[in-house]
Amino acid sequence: MTTIKSNASTEVPGRDEIAAAFRGIQEEICTRIETADGAGKFTREAWEHKGGGGGLTRIMRNGDVLEKAGVNFSGVEGTLTEEMAAGIGAEVSPFFATGVSIVMHPHSPHVPIIHMNIRYFETTGGTYWFGGGIDLTPHYVNPAQARFFHEKVKAVCDRFDPAYYPRFKQWADDYFFIPHRGETRGVGGIFYDRLVADETHTKPDLLAFCLAVGRLFHDVYTELIRENRHLPFTENEKKWQLIRRGRYVEFNLVYDRGTRFGLFGNGRTESILMSLPALASWEYDHTPAPGSPEADTLAMLRKGRDWTAGQK
Amino acid sequence: MTTIKSNASTEVPGRDEIAAAFRGIQEEICTRIETADGAGKFTREAWEHKGGGGGLTRIMRNGDVLEKAGVNFSGVEGTLTEEMAAGIGAEVSPFFATGVSIVMHPHSPHVPIIHMNIRYFETTGGTYWFGGGIDLTPHYVNPAQARFFHEKVKAVCDRFDPAYYPRFKQWADDYFFIPHRGETRGVGGIFYDRLVADETHTKPDLLAFCLAVGRLFHDVYTELIRENRHLPFTENEKKWQLIRRGRYVEFNLVYDRGTRFGLFGNGRTESILMSLPALASWEYDHTPAPGSPEADTLAMLRKGRDWTAGQK
Repeated sequence: MTTIKSNASTEVPGRDEIAAAFRGIQEEICTRIETADGAGKFTREAWEHKGGGGGLTRIMRNGDVLEKAGVNFSGVEGTLTEEMAAGIGAEVSPFFATGVSIVMHPHSPHVPIIHMNIRYFETTGGTYWFGGGIDLTPHYVNPAQARFFHEKVKAVCDRFDPAYYPRFKQWADDYFFIPHRGETRGVGGIFYDRLVADETHTKPDLLAFCLAVGRLFHDVYTELIRENRHLPFTENEKKWQLIRRGRYVEFNLVYDRGTRFGLFGNGRTESILMSLPALASWEYDHTPAPGSPEADTLAMLRKGRDWTAGQK
Repeated sequence: MTTIKSNASTEVPGRDEIAAAFRGIQEEICTRIETADGAGKFTREAWEHKGGGGGLTRIMRNGDVLEKAGVNFSGVEGTLTEEMAAGIGAEVSPFFATGVSIVMHPHSPHVPIIHMNIRYFETTGGTYWFGGGIDLTPHYVNPAQARFFHEKVKAVCDRFDPAYYPRFKQWADDYFFIPHRGETRGVGGIFYDRLVADETHTKPDLLAFCLAVGRLFHDVYTELIRENRHLPFTENEKKWQLIRRGRYVEFNLVYDRGTRFGLFGNGRTESILMSLPALASWEYDHTPAPGSPEADTLAMLRKGRDWTAGQK
């Protein structure tokens, strides 16, 4: 297969350097999250991809805080089928795709679920782009913590481009949305895709932005774990957590492009579906009592909310 | 909206008679399954559809045998969008669709999950068809019971057309398949779609076949409940059940056409997703020990198996 080779002496990062930087971020995140958890350790499972390349899947099970957490790195080669190419608007050609994908499900309903992804895609035809995102899914929305999260995300975005946060925040609102429920998945965050170099952003800038999002992840999640890990919870709150996890499953299996692209593109199923929780539940027509914390949370799962303004 | 009106005096059943017959089957099934369960009762929730028509959703929660069971009837009018029309190969026009959909999740891992669906679709342009299916998803495959199930299904098919069972059984193998797992959902059954009257089958024949599939459902499931309800089970078997239910969720949300058509077509979410279990689990890279009953079950979840021959 013809591939674009990186060249360490040039300013423009090639695929191998980008993949190595992503691999480094995976390592850093696992180390930092093991520290934050205090007990759980990530396993290490290297795998190969049929088309070329492979990945490293790291899973924590039954940590002190985290019930199930996955940090997946992949760097795979393949050839776009016509259907896949049409779906992503690229030419039918060999491609290389590398990324880090993370989903963490805590034991406690008071610690939020979190997701982060950074990715790079290129074809041998010269097309390339960066993408990524980070979003927070509290089982119970805490507006002060949602504000903390969004302000941290905004600060990282602002370092690269003041236009990023408003644009990518709205993109996240639109992307992390469950139409059949009329709910956002959580309090959102940012989502971005198809970033290419232009007059104001070089390719190294774009890579640096992705890496900054990766580092942001372990900083904010460490803080959110610290703040919430020791809060007591009731059986009823645990039940609500399992229902919210059910919605998470619905989003990932019905809509999430990464999940569906992976499953339909012969990706490694276990690495793709590490995003699903250890336990989830569905109750027919579950409706929280008016005025309950659960009803308050549902009312806040709406698009277009400015979390940085600290709205209640 | 222009609709095709039924006329009770003709031999050809119209949409209202078909819908009424389906509604009758729903009632019969609920009565029979309440008797089989012995304790649980089905709730009754009537709902309206934005486009016209509506349905009746009946749910049993925490019965003696059944943890969660849904028997849904709908008879809805709408207009096919271009995308929906292209997806099902019909013209862009007003349509009427009626059907009964059932999924039952028992408490015990030794009682199988079961699904049944019968449906009728027509457009004002004169296109119509019947479809349906019944399939069994044991958490632990019992070949003798799979044989019993398939032989009962085959007997009903044979009454209408000896070609039905082989054709519809293969269709079920292909339909109830989870490509990303390389597993069938369960031991299959039958699946059929786009049945229209021809030289050998009148429209009343096709309706009678659908109704026979509906009645078959409560007969075979009553028997399977009776045979398995009192078998003891271990915590480990319960854990396996939740993992198998996770696969059921994967099939329904990733592939099932009825589910996706419903969710994307603004169907009633709670009625569509009543098929999801009360509790399901995902464990990273779960692999049963060689020679275990769980490994035996996995080995039997393969397409093309002739269950009626009573293979081990």
